[in-house]
Order: sequence, then C-alpha cells, then structure tokens
Amino acid sequence: MANVALAGAYMTHFDEHWDKGLRDIIGGSLLGLAGAVDRNFDLSKIEAIYIGNAGAELFEEQAQLGAIAASCLHKNIPSIRIEAACASGGAALSVAAQAVRAGDYDTVVVLGAEKMTDVTAPSTVTSILSTALDEEWERQCGQTLAGAWAIMARSHMAEYCTTREHLASVVVKNHANGALNPKAQFQRPIPKEAVLRAPFVAEPLTVLDCAPISDGAAALLLTSAQRAHEFTDTPVWILGSGLATDSVAIHERVSTHSLLGTQIAGKRAFDLSKKTVHDIQVAEVHDSFSIGELIAIEDLGFFHPGKAGPATLAGDTALNANISVNPSGGLKARGHPLGATGVAQAVEIFQQLRNEAERRQVRDAQVGLTHNVGGTGGTCVVHILGLESGGA
Amino acid sequence: MANVALAGAYMTHFDEHWDKGLRDIIGGSLLGLAGAVDRNFDLSKIEAIYIGNAGAELFEEQAQLGAIAASCLHKNIPSIRIEAACASGGAALSVAAQAVRAGDYDTVVVLGAEKMTDVTAPSTVTSILSTALDEEWERQCGQTLAGAWAIMARSHMAEYCTTREHLASVVVKNHANGALNPKAQFQRPIPKEAVLRAPFVAEPLTVLDCAPISDGAAALLLTSAQRAHEFTDTPVWILGSGLATDSVAIHERVSTHSLLGTQIAGKRAFDLSKKTVHDIQVAEVHDSFSIGELIAIEDLGFFHPGKAGPATLAGDTALNANISVNPSGGLKARGHPLGATGVAQAVEIFQQLRNEAERRQVRDAQVGLTHNVGGTGGTCVVHILGLESGGA
Repeated sequence: MANVALAGAYMTHFDEHWDKGLRDIIGGSLLGLAGAVDRNFDLSKIEAIYIGNAGAELFEEQAQLGAIAASCLHKNIPSIRIEAACASGGAALSVAAQAVRAGDYDTVVVLGAEKMTDVTAPSTVTSILSTALDEEWERQCGQTLAGAWAIMARSHMAEYCTTREHLASVVVKNHANGALNPKAQFQRPIPKEAVLRAPFVAEPLTVLDCAPISDGAAALLLTSAQRAHEFTDTPVWILGSGLATDSVAIHERVSTHSLLGTQIAGKRAFDLSKKTVHDIQVAEVHDSFSIGELIAIEDLGFFHPGKAGPATLAGDTALNANISVNPSGGLKARGHPLGATGVAQAVEIFQQLRNEAERRQVRDAQVGLTHNVGGTGGTCVVHILGLESGGA
Repeated sequence: MANVALAGAYMTHFDEHWDKGLRDIIGGSLLGLAGAVDRNFDLSKIEAIYIGNAGAELFEEQAQLGAIAASCLHKNIPSIRIEAACASGGAALSVAAQAVRAGDYDTVVVLGAEKMTDVTAPSTVTSILSTALDEEWERQCGQTLAGAWAIMARSHMAEYCTTREHLASVVVKNHANGALNPKAQFQRPIPKEAVLRAPFVAEPLTVLDCAPISDGAAALLLTSAQRAHEFTDTPVWILGSGLATDSVAIHERVSTHSLLGTQIAGKRAFDLSKKTVHDIQVAEVHDSFSIGELIAIEDLGFFHPGKAGPATLAGDTALNANISVNPSGGLKARGHPLGATGVAQAVEIFQQLRNEAERRQVRDAQVGLTHNVGGTGGTCVVHILGLESGGA
C-alpha cells in the first residue's frame, strides 16, 4: 500500500453548539486545520476535499455538502460528500487516501462534520438515526438504533455471560478519559452506579450507555509521501485501511454478538500494515453504545470473544493499561457528531502518536488503530496509523 | 491519467416503478450488468462498489446504501455511497476510477440508483429536491429547484436574447431521441407547441421544460487496463475526468447564465484526455431543465455563449448533426432518477462508442462526453470517454 501521510489534524470542540450552523462548524474546522498544521500550510493549498456526513439532508435539509465545504474556501476544487451512516468519516478517510494514492492530488483534506441539534426537518433525532437501520426489515417495524444494539447486547450476555456491570465499565473508563480531553463533550467522570441506575433506553442499555447527540467537525490534511515533510517533521502514516460491509438488518447476519464487518476490515487493515494487535498501543473504537466497544475489541483481536467485558472491568483497556482504548473519551464522552466521528478518531491517534495528547497521553505510542461503524455494523472501517512509514 | 476501462454497462428501464422498491432496483441493475458484460463476468468478481444516490434518506428513509448494495450480492466487499445531489452518479464514477487507479481493485462496479415515487418520508418530492439548493439562502426563502433554474433561464434570455422557442427546441429534440430509446421513460415525440403551451412550473419553464420524477438504476463495470480484455474485446476508456464545485446558492456565483463548475470540470477533463470539443461526436449533458442543456453546451465549448439556443433550434445538436447531444433522450425524455443519471450518461456513451445504440446510433462515434450537474451547479462532473485508450 503506497504511503499516504497525515500531515495535520484538528477537531472542533464536540458539544451542543446551539449558536452555530453546519456551515459555521465546517468552516471552523477548516480554519482550525490551517492553524494546526506545523508549517507551510494555508487553505489555498487544498486540492480536494472529501467530507463525511451522515445526515445533513435530514438534520438541516441540506444536500451536496461537498460543494458547501468547498465554498467555505471560495474555491471551485473537487469536493465530494461520502455517506455511510455513522461510518461516514472513516469511509471518507479511506476514499481520500485512495485519491492521493491514485496520484490525482498531493494535498487533500478529509472532513467529517455533523450538526445534530436544532433540527429543522420534520423529524426527530431518533427517527433520523433510524435511517441507518434497514428500512424494510427494521425501521418500519419500529426498531431504533438503541433497540438494535440492545439486541446485540442481550445476545452477547447470553453467549458469554457478559453483565451490565461489564457494559458500565466501558462507560466509566471513557468518561474518565473524556475528563482529560479539552475537546470532549463530557469532561467529567461518572461512577458505575450512575450508569447502572440510569433509566433504560432499550434494556439492557441505559441512557448512560448511549453516546450523546453532538455537533462538531474534524479535519485531516492528507498528503503524498513526497509532500509530507513540507508541512511537518512528524507525519503520521496510513499503514493499513480496511472497509467491509454486512447486511444492514442484524437478523440476516452470521452473528448477533460480533460484527463480521469489523473482522474483515480489521484483517485487511492489519494485513496491509504488516502489523498485529500486539503492535498497537492505542485504539479508538466505535462505542456509540457501550456494548459496541466490547464487541469491537473482540472482533479486532485484542481480546478473545467474551473476554472484553471482564478485561474492561479489570482495567485492562484503561489509559496506559495493556491497550489504551478510547483515550479521547470515545463516542460516549468525546461526543458523537455522526460524520465527524471517524475523522476525529484519526485526529486522536495523530495526536497520540506525536505525543501531543497532554493529560491523556498514551506512553510510547508508535502504532494506533481507528475503528468506525455505520449503524449497527452495515459498514465497518479500520485504519492502522503509525509513526514509521513502513517503506512501500 | 492512468487507464481505467469501462468493460460493461447496463441500465434498467427508467420509469415510475410503483411495483419495485429501491433494493429491487439496485439488485436488478446488478443482475442486468452480469448479463450485459461480454464474457467471463459474474457478480462474484466484483471487488468493490461505489453507489451514487442523491436522497434515499429522504425518499425511503434509508441511509448507508453502500451496505444495502453490497448485501444484494451477499458479500462483505467495500461499498460506499457518494452523494452530490443530482451529480451523485458522475461523482461516484470519478471516485471509483480513482480507486482503480490507486491500484486497490481491478474490478469495481459503479452504481447509480434512485427511487423517487412512492415516497415514505414526511416530505414531498419538490421539498426533497430543494435540499440540493442552499438551505440558508435559498430553500428557507421558499426557492425551488425549478425556480432557481428559471432565474438562470431569465438571465440567459436577458443576456443573449434566448427565447422560449429556443428552450422548447431542446425538449423537442430530446423527446425525438427518447422515442428511439427502449429504456427511456418517455418514448414519444412532442411538438414544440405543446411545450410552449404547457403550464408554467416557474416562468419561463413549463412542466415540459422539466425532467420527470423517475425510478431507475444504472451500472458500470470498471477495470484496470490489464483486466479489461478479460471481459470484452471493446472496452471504452476513461480519457479524462473533471469535477468542480461552486457556491450552492446562485447569487454568490460569478454568473447566473453560465456554470463556472462546468467550465472548470470540462477544461480539466479535456486537458487530461488531450482532446478538444472537435474530437467529440456525442455528448450526454445535464438537461434537468431545458435551459440546462443550452448552458452546458456553451460552457463545455461546443457553442459560443448565447449561440446554443439558435443552434439547437436550427437542428445542429440533433441526432447525427454537427454534434449529437443527448441521443438517449437526456434527463428530459430518458428520465432522471437523480443518482442514476450520471451513470446512465456513461452507459449511453459506452453503447454509442461500441456501435450498440441501434436506432439512435451516432455515426462513427469515437469519443464521447458526459456532463452531470448537482442541483443548480454546485457540483459539476465531466468525463471524456473513448474507444482508443490514448496510451499512459
């Protein structure tokens, strides 16, 4: 896999930004990126944009976000919107890297953005999120995203004796990490009892097992290998990339307590990178619901099936434990503006590998992983990022 | 630009398919493609899918169409949805070609699909189409897609003395061509008087100046240069590709009677292909509204600004005239299932260059052009396709 570098990264504060529209958020992330690149960069150097966004037609009644993003620059450059529900950001990163590898551009920006509060469309957020389900087999029957993940949680519990305490330990860890992240939506720890006693959204998932509704954007500068050092002494390299799909409806899948998409995407990313789980010090995985993190770190191979719950409860995935999972706070505490999430995961790994993560810094992080899921697993995207380019 | 081949092409009948859902239409186009490739192809050879779709979240409340398309194959391959309003199909083609040029895949399918009838969402088609406008500056003020194109028509009339008869001559020509196309939604000629006397949607555009609401899908098999002849003796080559953006709101543009996006995308595609307008025998351009075709063939350089109306009225763009524009019937008569349109344009050029267009065949067609527009010009995509690969 030819080398593509991340030469700069930025994310806005993830929060409910009632005073900002989607265009403000996108523009803010581009300006932030301009300030965040180490040297020699200004917005006029952007040759193309790939923007991950899950639902602006529904949240703001605005399509064609590629053009909206490019017009923030007052340029007429190629700019395309990629949609894969909550995996839109990860998918946009994979497409942008292809464009650089194809030799079409040397400097490309990957954006991820979502404005979920202040919905103008005649829908609710829950109803909008349900478009990530299968319309014919799930949504029309009244299923919700939380309900579908709850089925997977129940299945995991039945298969592996996973408990609600295991699920809650994901939340407690991610809030502890989020408390160290100045860009996180929730910067406070919460006790396990609060999670266990919170009202159910879809049993066994309480409201505190669910990622919040968020506004925000994240941006990455991708460059060819030749150009990376023009912008920084410390590029981060895309060592491997995998994207896989599965049936959108969970009843059609081979398992309801694992994601085949994650397994396939993870294997491809690891194969391309010539790395294994043992090379990874830090991982940002998709915990839109707490059960998602347990399934992810099993499917990616960090833990044997059924072992992720006890391991998390034992602290093995805490900051600077065996493997640091979601040091940013994850979707749960950093926030989850849908299309921005996959890009923000890469922003976090970029900062971790460059030793810029301050109070949440993972020691000696050399290789990191991002894992982004659309809906309940219809689309899964895995990237392996490293400080060493690994030749090619 | 490294060579990428179209090795197969198929489109469904474009029509109102009240008996079919979006998934049926997508699956049907994949099965159709399998039957349409000359040899050695079956659906198991597809390595990745890029699907252009403008608004399934709004029309069917279904996001994540990449996964929906891949699951029609019961495979877990990479599959990503691209959205650029009505230019989604053209944008998907450009992204898919990049993926092949990047060396990631040898055989990729580009799909375009839209199901516009039988809307389940709490919206009307007109309101859904308006998401291609600028939400803040146009849509919230009550602007519609037809209204915005009507402003451009008025501007073109004021600048160049373009008349309603010029506009109507686009419609008459495209219906005459559509009458020769068994896949077209409208397979009957209409007289100029009918267009002029039809009720206004947005003056000066009558209902017959507007493309219809359609269901349909189109599919292309893209391969690397090495693999093309495995599937056919007569591949069609992507010689040039250009995609450009502009402000989504028309008041922010440099002109209201031309599209800078088309000009920039066209120049890039021509430059890459080393072709000029004089090399093109057949062009499929974006006539979602009749004025769109006039502006397109001026912006692409086939006619000087202001000359397209009189030229069309004089028959210079008719089948086998100086330049055959929209031999398929265009969006107007072939139909305009939004995301499918850009792909269907390439299907038409594929068939024309291979001398397979039967009664609407353009004589000695060697090089063709496709031109796809998002909304009112926020995204413009141009491809140049040819029988000779042109080296590289």
